[in-house]
Amino acid sequence: MRLAALQMHAVAGDRTANFFRIETAAREAAENGADLLVTPELAIPGYGAGEMISELAEPAGGDLAERLAALSRETGVALVVGFAEHDGETVFNSAIYADGQRSIVYRKSHLFGPYERKLFAPGKPAACIVEHRGMKLGMLICYDVEFPENVRRLAQTGAQAVIVPTALPASDHAEFIARKLVPVRAFENQLFVAYVNHCGNDALFSYAGLSGIAAPDGTMLAEAPETGEALLFADIQPTDYAASTAANTYLPDLRV
Amino acid sequence: MRLAALQMHAVAGDRTANFFRIETAAREAAENGADLLVTPELAIPGYGAGEMISELAEPAGGDLAERLAALSRETGVALVVGFAEHDGETVFNSAIYADGQRSIVYRKSHLFGPYERKLFAPGKPAACIVEHRGMKLGMLICYDVEFPENVRRLAQTGAQAVIVPTALPASDHAEFIARKLVPVRAFENQLFVAYVNHCGNDALFSYAGLSGIAAPDGTMLAEAPETGEALLFADIQPTDYAASTAANTYLPDLRV
Repeated sequence: MRLAALQMHAVAGDRTANFFRIETAAREAAENGADLLVTPELAIPGYGAGEMISELAEPAGGDLAERLAALSRETGVALVVGFAEHDGETVFNSAIYADGQRSIVYRKSHLFGPYERKLFAPGKPAACIVEHRGMKLGMLICYDVEFPENVRRLAQTGAQAVIVPTALPASDHAEFIARKLVPVRAFENQLFVAYVNHCGNDALFSYAGLSGIAAPDGTMLAEAPETGEALLFADIQPTDYAASTAANTYLPDLRV
Repeated sequence: MRLAALQMHAVAGDRTANFFRIETAAREAAENGADLLVTPELAIPGYGAGEMISELAEPAGGDLAERLAALSRETGVALVVGFAEHDGETVFNSAIYADGQRSIVYRKSHLFGPYERKLFAPGKPAACIVEHRGMKLGMLICYDVEFPENVRRLAQTGAQAVIVPTALPASDHAEFIARKLVPVRAFENQLFVAYVNHCGNDALFSYAGLSGIAAPDGTMLAEAPETGEALLFADIQPTDYAASTAANTYLPDLRV
């Protein structure tokens, strides 16, 4: 499979503008032969939408899911898109996988800091795995991936790649997380990790960029800079990393 | 506390030469104000001693422990030393902490590859923690630290630093492990990690060097080169990293 990752400058609070940006990227991804496009955390409402989040939240099976399914059918590109999910009175920080036939929703289990904990309820930690073109893709969101337990759970359930929409703010630790922690997650589980961030600013946050796609041997297949939008591409082919997986047998060797 | 780490060129099969080298380093560590000296995995018999290991193995409470206790009393430097441990018919890949009063032994739980699995029995995964000058030090050996579960177990038991004698061979992945995985273990648990390797060659292995001491914020406090012996020093003071620990609240935030 060929994965595309959109490092995106979302407009906080403007679902129409953000959907349009994703639509454009899906067409560009299709032109470049990709079959999956990953976008950042809360790409639809914008991560920094603050108090507007609850109004901008939508149900998992509603209009957004239908529009993404239609876009996927049109382009041939499946989509992973971050959105605010409304379920009764509860709002989750979610990501939806849509390929035209199915839509599968993952709810972030590890909320970061008071901003997120005020706006969202946490999902229950779980292995959410999607079969995509014969590969098993696990889903996490942002802070989730910083906990080795969450990636391990997916690996032990058979994930070959982990898709991580994120909203990593600029900080002293941003480069460490994007360029060391993320590839270590890939290496210690011998799977791919696509870590897809926002860039630029909104009224509340400044984002770190540095989106990247890590391979099972810990190398980076594609890397975005700190600033500016970018559409990254990588071929996700586990058999290319058979030597690494034979040498680094963490999953069979683990004892607890 | 002030930690010294000896990147060491051990002589495979020569316990006398290796003890003498550690003795010299303990005196040098004392002169530099250190109160703990860490040496590599199997520093006493030499990692590459192969079939000789079972003859070179010794009991946890025997002559080696006594000599290390005497050396620690003489220098004022506590020691962590890798040795082959004989317990009845069973041989473990162990490390001993000796400070003159106490000796505490940790047995490696995650043996690496057929070489180690032929020579040793694995220890049971466990949180082995030593109180040293008011700090809680966890012990692991080499491959153990590559599994996030082992470091997490120590962190959740209160470890503020993890001491890791190692024998990392030169490979495509050595620098990744020493310079990315090791600091990520420190960062994701907000503790110090001292990763202390061999250098040079013996008849069986070529070692990667690259010993290092990582801080809770993921920075390296001291780093050895790939080749040549080195005595590294670092001041291990958790309160220096209060800002990092306040910003990266992985232990309280973990949900399973």
